[in-house]
This record gives sequence, C-alpha cells and structure tokens, in this order.
Amino acid sequence: WSKLRETAIGAGRKLRKIGTDDPRRILHSLKVGLALTLISIFYYVKPLFHGLGASTMWAVLTVVVVMEYTVGGTLSKGLNRAFATLLAGALGLGAHQLAALCGDKGEPILLSVFVFLLAAMATFSRFVPEIKARYDYGVTIFILTFSLVAVSGYRVDQLLQLAHQRLSTIAIGVATCLATSIFVFPVWAGEDLHDLVALNLEKLANYLEGLGKEHFGEKMETKKMVDLTFLQSYKSVLNSKSIEDALANFARWEPGHGGFGYRHPWKHYLKIGALIRQCACSIEALNAYISIAENDQMTVTDEEFLQRIRADCAAMSSESGKALAELAAGIRQMECPLAAVQHMSRAAAAAGGVKTAAPAEDASMPEVLRSATTASL
Amino acid sequence: WSKLRETAIGAGRKLRKIGTDDPRRILHSLKVGLALTLISIFYYVKPLFHGLGASTMWAVLTVVVVMEYTVGGTLSKGLNRAFATLLAGALGLGAHQLAALCGDKGEPILLSVFVFLLAAMATFSRFVPEIKARYDYGVTIFILTFSLVAVSGYRVDQLLQLAHQRLSTIAIGVATCLATSIFVFPVWAGEDLHDLVALNLEKLANYLEGLGKEHFGEKMETKKMVDLTFLQSYKSVLNSKSIEDALANFARWEPGHGGFGYRHPWKHYLKIGALIRQCACSIEALNAYISIAENDQMTVTDEEFLQRIRADCAAMSSESGKALAELAAGIRQMECPLAAVQHMSRAAAAAGGVKTAAPAEDASMPEVLRSATTASL
Repeated sequence: WSKLRETAIGAGRKLRKIGTDDPRRILHSLKVGLALTLISIFYYVKPLFHGLGASTMWAVLTVVVVMEYTVGGTLSKGLNRAFATLLAGALGLGAHQLAALCGDKGEPILLSVFVFLLAAMATFSRFVPEIKARYDYGVTIFILTFSLVAVSGYRVDQLLQLAHQRLSTIAIGVATCLATSIFVFPVWAGEDLHDLVALNLEKLANYLEGLGKEHFGEKMETKKMVDLTFLQSYKSVLNSKSIEDALANFARWEPGHGGFGYRHPWKHYLKIGALIRQCACSIEALNAYISIAENDQMTVTDEEFLQRIRADCAAMSSESGKALAELAAGIRQMECPLAAVQHMSRAAAAAGGVKTAAPAEDASMPEVLRSATTASL
Repeated sequence: WSKLRETAIGAGRKLRKIGTDDPRRILHSLKVGLALTLISIFYYVKPLFHGLGASTMWAVLTVVVVMEYTVGGTLSKGLNRAFATLLAGALGLGAHQLAALCGDKGEPILLSVFVFLLAAMATFSRFVPEIKARYDYGVTIFILTFSLVAVSGYRVDQLLQLAHQRLSTIAIGVATCLATSIFVFPVWAGEDLHDLVALNLEKLANYLEGLGKEHFGEKMETKKMVDLTFLQSYKSVLNSKSIEDALANFARWEPGHGGFGYRHPWKHYLKIGALIRQCACSIEALNAYISIAENDQMTVTDEEFLQRIRADCAAMSSESGKALAELAAGIRQMECPLAAVQHMSRAAAAAGGVKTAAPAEDASMPEVLRSATTASL
C-alpha cells in the first residue's frame, strides 16, 4: 500500500515537472478543453441548429483531431482537412454519377474498383517525402471522405445536402480551433524554432566555455570531466533534427507574428541547425577523446607537452565558446553579431598556437561560425 | 506545354524510384486498397447487415486510420483504438448517469464541465514522453469518444445499443486491417529495425574501409575525399534516431515472426543504434578535419611525418572497418562475430602505432565494438 502511494507521489512529481518545465503545456491542455466545451455547447443548444443533427459529431471530431500544440500545426491540419474533404467529396460525387450510368448491377462493382484505385494511389503518394511532410493528414482525409461518399449508397441529391452539412460543420470546427489557438495564449512554431536554434547554440557555447575553464584551467587534475553534468547538455543537440524539421514545417503555415513576417526564411534555421549538429558532433568526438585520455591517466601525452599547449587550448575553447554565445545572442535579438568575429579571430590565433603542436580537433568550428554569421539574422 | 510534360516525366521518374527503392511500398498501397474494398463490399451487401446501418462509416473510418505500413504499427493503432473506445464509452455512460441525477437544468452544465476536465487532463497526459510514444493515438480516441458520448444527448438505453454497434464495427475494421497486414506480404517493424541497424553498421564499415584505401592508400594525392560520393553514405546514420525509436516502439507490439521471439530484446537495438551514432559522430569530425586539411594543402603537418604514419592509419581504418563489417554480418545472421575481435586487435595494434605520433582521433571506436559484441546478437 505504501508502495502504491510512493509511485503515485513519483508520478505526481513527474507530471508537475512536465508542467513547470513549460507552463504553456498546461495552457494548451486547458485550451483543448475550452475548444471542445465551446463546440459542444454550440451544438447542445438544439433549437438553434436543429438542421445539422447528426453532423454534431463531425464538429467534435474535427476539434479533437485538428487541435495541435502550435498555431502552425493547427492551421496546417485544419486546411488539410478542409481542402481534402472538399476535393474528395467532389470526386466522390463524380464517381457516383459515372457509376450510376452502368445500371444496378455494375454500380457497386465500379464503385469498389474506384475505391481500390484511389486508395492505392493516394497511399502510395504518402511515400513521397514532400507529400509526407506537408500533406500526410490531408491524404488520409482524402481517402476517408472518398470512400465514405462512394460507399454510402445515397442518391446524388441526398449526397449534395450531406456534403453541404459536412463542410459547414468542419468549417465551424476548424474556425473554433483556430480562434482558440491564435487568440488564447498562442504558441507559435516559428518562435519555438527560433528559440530552439538559439538554445542549441548556447548549449554548445556553454560546453566550450566550461571546457576552457574546467579542463584546461588551473584545477586541471582535480575533477573528472565526466562528473561535470552541466557539460552534458550538448548531447540533446545531436538529436534535434526531427523536432526542427517539424517546427519549420509548421512555421511555414503561420501568418506573421511578433518579429517574424509571413515569408520569414525558415529554411535558414534548418541550415544553421544542421551546422550546429555538425559542430556538436565534433564536440562529441572531442569529449569522447578527453574522457578516454582521462581514463588512461595521461600515459600517452607527456606532462611537459601538455603544460605547453594548455593555455592555448583554454583560450581556444573559451573564445570559440564566447563567439558561439555571441552568435546565439545575435539570433535571439535578430542582429548581426559583430563581437563574435572578434572572439573568433582570438580563438583562431589560439588555435594556431595549438596547431603547431597537435592537430586541432575542433577544426570544423570556424566553418560553423562563418556560415552562421553569413546567415546574418 | 513541353515544360509541363517535362515536370510530369520528372514526377513519374521520381515515383518509380520510390517504388523500386522498396517494392513493399507498392504492395502496401495495394493492401490498403484491398482492405478498404473488402470492408466496403462487406457493407455494401445490405441485406446481410441491415442492423448496423450508419455504422458502416465507422468501419471505413477505422480501416483508413488504423492501416499502417508495418504490422506493429497496425496492431498498436488498432489496439489503442479499441481499448480507448471501450474505456471512454464506459466513462461517458457513467458521466451521463451522474449528470441525469442533477435534473434537466444541471445536466448540460455538468456534462460540459466533465468534457472540459477530461479533455484537459487527457491532453496534458500526452506531454508525458512514455504516453506520447505509445498511447498518443489512444488518448486522442479517448477524448473523441468521451466527448461524442457526452454531447450526444441520447438516453442511456439508446447509448448502450449505439455502443454495441460502434464496438462491433470497430472490431470488424481492426480485424480486416490486421488480416490484410499480417497475411498479405507482411512488413514487420522488428525486421526493419534489425536490417536498419545492420545497414548503418555497414555504412560506417564502408566509410572506414574506403578511407583506408583511398585516403591513406597509395594514390593519396590524386583524389579529393569530398569527391568520393560513396563515402558520404554514413551521413544518413547521424539522423536515424527517430526512425529507430519508432520502429522499436512498433516492434514491441508484434507477435513472434521469423527468427524473432515475442519478447525479443528490441531495446538492445536502440543501445547499439546510439553507439553507432556516436561512432558516426567521430567519423563526421574526422571527415571534417580531413577535408579542411586537404584545403590547407597540407601546410601544417609536414610531409615526412605524414609518410611515417600513413601505413598505420591505413591499417587502422581498414581493419576497424572490417571489424564493423563483421559485426554487421553478425547482427544479420544473429551470431556472435568472432572474426571481429581479431580485426579489432589488429586495428588496435595499428592505432598504437599511430598514437605514438599523434592523438588517435577515432578513439571512441573500440567502445562501440565492445558494446556491440557484448550485446551478442
């Protein structure tokens, strides 16, 4: 019994941590609840919308499925849903008209053939990367609506009325979702992407500055690198690609907001992100090398040599760390980071000092810096 | 007009490439078409299932939404859908009973409050990583079904009948999907994961062997590394995490198949995958260093020194490449790769030769090898 209480407390703590890590998550949950309640009240008031009847369901369904965490996500799903339904509905009606010409016997057979062909073709199109990234949900809805219309077995005039109802309910559902996600504490995918890229740069900067201080600094022998947990935060940078791609994809749908215009160059963020990951890779390799060298108790490199390059190494890593931090600040404030160039040249000078003795291991660093600067955000 | 034809030809070529890259994609598309046609024929035969009526729609909807590329994906979605509907339906009925006690005025208010609370709580639970990974779809369906039941405004005995219908149609839909995906050319997520991990290892092995041959080999100065496109394939390894996670997640749902039991240790694949990515990171850093060194026209490191370590470097990279290839073969055939240890020791000997002159840059290699061997698949 006490064990049960412990797990409950543990779960509670975990949930609270998720909430405090990003309070917008709690707000989002409340927003979903709000949108759903709005739409159900809207339809619970029967006398007003008696005509829509069973379509209530479709409005609720739309809200539940379309409501996403970011504005861009909601917009992309909502538009996908609306246009896919329209297109598939029209095609379905056409298929019905065509099948009706074949008489009572041929109709079901022809409709089945149509469903088979369209479902197979649409499913195949989902393997195309571009369609998968942007219209995956739309294709699903397309298949669904076309099959429903084709299978329904209604007459065409009934179908037209049904289509009218269906579209209006979906429009109401999408409008409710958009209204709640844009006007009530909006979460912009573009802003998130912007922050994520800057944060990743800062993580790398932290690592390099920490490395300069702790590893190459005065207290060199006292601590092991592996114990310094604050130096481990760069690891999350390595796997940030899928999140960045998704955010950039959503950001493309968003209208202008804050400091970002409608056609903000979101692709540049992906390029910087890729360079950041490359840089993180170099750091990862460097880190692995350092921890192995520590386990070896410095048998390979002799003490004197180490003393000689230590100051240069320290300067190199802390200066490139500062340069990265400047870049991150530049991205956050959307200014061209001039101070970074200065730090960079100092780092390069220090690197030159090390290079004469040993091959520079973070040689790819300047590349990142240069590209990030030319992106000039 | 000719431009239109050109783009059409281009698109056609692209589609054919997607199909020929993995013919199972075409099969999958046909399977989706088949499942949909089956279910629509099933319901088109009206006299047999007159009782189900409008529920036809739910069967079609289930098939469209549940049918996934891999068996594990279909199973996971199908089970999620079935259980979430059951649970939410039961809770919805309970909420109705409770709300009915409050009289005509209180009922809609209480129901709205219930919908708001449950939707907010369920949405928040989706931010928990474990739930997000495995039950995301189930939570969506849970919110949907609960809202539908709560909003519907039917009496309880009508609801029971409706629930019975709904569950039977969903069961039929899920069964159809499972039958088509298991018995007609099944695509197992576990098998895909297994192949992906082995393939990634092989890519790294290719790179290292190619590096040993081309860069450190005889023709050292003739070609630039950047031109050798076959050496670039390792880059895709770096971003394989999300695919691996998804496959491992689906694989967990799958019954035993081929050489894999029901409780195959899929988590080990993720561990090996993480080590492979770490190794790929080292290679990435190494690669960046080499390409920069090439651009510098070898100004830093003097020619004589280079000649001295070249043979050792060549031996080291080609031997560790061979060791990785052996490991990949071992994973493919699920045997403990003994030959790899031998290659490894040779590589270590060569590495020792290099280390005396310069810090070994792929020092993290042995770690990967050791872990992969101990996983002993």
